[in-house]
Amino acid sequence: MLQAALATGEAHRRCVFEAFARRLPDGRRYGVIAGTGRVLEALEQFRFGDDELRFLSDNEVVDRATVDWLASYRFSGDVSGYAEGECYFPQSPVLVVESTFAEGVILETLVLSILNHDTAIASAASRMTAAAGGRPCIEMGSRRTHEESAVAAARAAYVAGFDATSNLEAGRRYGVPTTGTAAHAFTLLYDSEKEAFTAQVESLGKGTTLLVDTYDVRSAVALAMDIAGPELGAVRLDSGDLLIQATEVRAQLDAAGNKDTRIIVTSDLDEYAIAALAAGPVSGYGVGTALVTGSGAPTASMVYKLVQREDASGEMQGVAKKSKDKTSVGGRKWAMRRLDGNGVAQAEVIGIGERPRDDGDDRSLMVELVLGGEVVDHQDIHEARARHEASRAELPRAAAQLSRGEPVIPTIYEED
Amino acid sequence: MLQAALATGEAHRRCVFEAFARRLPDGRRYGVIAGTGRVLEALEQFRFGDDELRFLSDNEVVDRATVDWLASYRFSGDVSGYAEGECYFPQSPVLVVESTFAEGVILETLVLSILNHDTAIASAASRMTAAAGGRPCIEMGSRRTHEESAVAAARAAYVAGFDATSNLEAGRRYGVPTTGTAAHAFTLLYDSEKEAFTAQVESLGKGTTLLVDTYDVRSAVALAMDIAGPELGAVRLDSGDLLIQATEVRAQLDAAGNKDTRIIVTSDLDEYAIAALAAGPVSGYGVGTALVTGSGAPTASMVYKLVQREDASGEMQGVAKKSKDKTSVGGRKWAMRRLDGNGVAQAEVIGIGERPRDDGDDRSLMVELVLGGEVVDHQDIHEARARHEASRAELPRAAAQLSRGEPVIPTIYEED
Repeated sequence: MLQAALATGEAHRRCVFEAFARRLPDGRRYGVIAGTGRVLEALEQFRFGDDELRFLSDNEVVDRATVDWLASYRFSGDVSGYAEGECYFPQSPVLVVESTFAEGVILETLVLSILNHDTAIASAASRMTAAAGGRPCIEMGSRRTHEESAVAAARAAYVAGFDATSNLEAGRRYGVPTTGTAAHAFTLLYDSEKEAFTAQVESLGKGTTLLVDTYDVRSAVALAMDIAGPELGAVRLDSGDLLIQATEVRAQLDAAGNKDTRIIVTSDLDEYAIAALAAGPVSGYGVGTALVTGSGAPTASMVYKLVQREDASGEMQGVAKKSKDKTSVGGRKWAMRRLDGNGVAQAEVIGIGERPRDDGDDRSLMVELVLGGEVVDHQDIHEARARHEASRAELPRAAAQLSRGEPVIPTIYEED
Repeated sequence: MLQAALATGEAHRRCVFEAFARRLPDGRRYGVIAGTGRVLEALEQFRFGDDELRFLSDNEVVDRATVDWLASYRFSGDVSGYAEGECYFPQSPVLVVESTFAEGVILETLVLSILNHDTAIASAASRMTAAAGGRPCIEMGSRRTHEESAVAAARAAYVAGFDATSNLEAGRRYGVPTTGTAAHAFTLLYDSEKEAFTAQVESLGKGTTLLVDTYDVRSAVALAMDIAGPELGAVRLDSGDLLIQATEVRAQLDAAGNKDTRIIVTSDLDEYAIAALAAGPVSGYGVGTALVTGSGAPTASMVYKLVQREDASGEMQGVAKKSKDKTSVGGRKWAMRRLDGNGVAQAEVIGIGERPRDDGDDRSLMVELVLGGEVVDHQDIHEARARHEASRAELPRAAAQLSRGEPVIPTIYEED
């Protein structure tokens, strides 16, 4: 594509590309944008190095002129879009790239890979933190997904309200709070559970979390209290009927005076399991597989489409594919969230070719991210986390329903 | 865990860790191991650098003694396991790590992340290539998954029989054959479809693949033949009812004498859609989202368990968690595929504590991968691809059924 368009000159036409999702994952009420900060970081570093250029050249993937063009690639256009943590809906213009065709078209895979993955994780994570009420959720899914996806997943989960991650690299790279736990292997390593618990408490202090289901839960809880006393931080349950066990363990802890010892539950939790545990004496949830795989929706299925481009006379023209089942809407988009007098979201309003009218209470959704190739807003993850909390709180209450349904607000177009 | 075990000395006990899946994804008949070569490459590079050590130290994640131990970390143990591309079943000991507790326990996340991701992709990919019969499958899903998962997914798909990928980095890094295509944006960039097709054919030759569904398929196919003539390489269909359209386009191509022009179909294909197109005049399949998300099973859900360790007297002891719903089987495992006289697989036979008896026709499944910290078999992906083809061909024919069912062969234990 790039080679052919460079050869004819059309590669230098001014273009507008737009990333959006045609629909939310089946049955979801809202989605959560994440990865914007990672897109910007990747954009700043997006270069073709010697190894890459040699591969393209040696294998005749592209011609000499294209290799030369790639060698000096620097994005010099503008990017705007939804800020990280913002809720989104079908057709929301979550990222808009304005540049030449050549500069914008080669960003497609990068932009979509990051947004599709991180948004899928954040969208699932938000349902989990909503179901957990105020109880803390801990991301523990690194082992169930690609080693680099794991780091990004921990970051996205944090944006959507998770409190911490067991992925230390996410702590180092992005400042996500980290926490750890012991595995069954630790208990099994020792000749007895008593030796294992003693070693852990001596090394990490009485505030540590002891895993109590390697052998017999009741005996292990008694042992844990013997060793750490009333200051025992927490016990973790990782198997069996968590609601029944948590209730029994709570009673056992309370009866022995360990009122402040928390109960952390793990074991294939998803948003439904978390909701089902709401009535139980659970202090926190550790979530793994379901989180890092998007709880049934492992990709946000966003697409990146050319929606406007310069024509032969230099005029900008809206363009769109005509195929029956995958229609796109041509033209540059802007978006607003229409709010009622109480600040409750009513609709996603998308303006084509111009900003939609503000009804007075509306909130503009697009922020400037890159101007003339320079990143002007790096999207801090702590701000994104606060933004998500506010954005979710603004949605109608039906957004929190876990049952399958339609998007909680409609998407409305306003044309100029 | 590591800090506490280093403090008491148990961290230096000899241990055996085993990676395995308790079950296949729901309804699947077999799974396909992939990622072994990536695990070995990562193992060779597994070091804690200054940045990582400083993070652990500054944030008091672990104590000084542990930071010092990590600073000099080099894996010095042995690893054996299923060769890449091999089919696997519930409880198959796909990777066995023998080392001290400390050296082996910190590999858990790395080993599982790679195996769980790559195996999930290869397992889905194998169903697709089986459904495609001999027709080529092309991996085109990079945009729908994390940017690094995308590279690994292209590699895993190749192992499981895909012919090529659109991910150029997978070509550069692993030698996976690459291929490209034009997007709708390319056609939309030009003032007319004719100008777009002409530019592509002039730049890439008549053997290129033209995307014919941006406006009207019938007109586009006619235009493509006008421009490239009988040497037109292929046309691509990316929307609508692919079976009907492929049939119509084939007739149109044939009537005009373009007997050798191939028809490539894309658009949310999965193994079921591929199977449904078997009767159509389709030359190849481009597969995206369903492939890179494991077609409903985005993780292989493998676990990494301590199954044997030295006791206080220096004897090796089998160990296993006792929890009701997540029982593991203690002891070092070996595995064999039991074959009948015709070379058809009958069972996955797992020996605990010793190699299972060979019935004469059986095939040993474990290969040595690392000895004394040195990788002795790097798992070439082209060999892995041939191995997968042979391993799949050896399974009972019911393995190829796409309908949900039980694993196509049972897993049997032999104890010493």
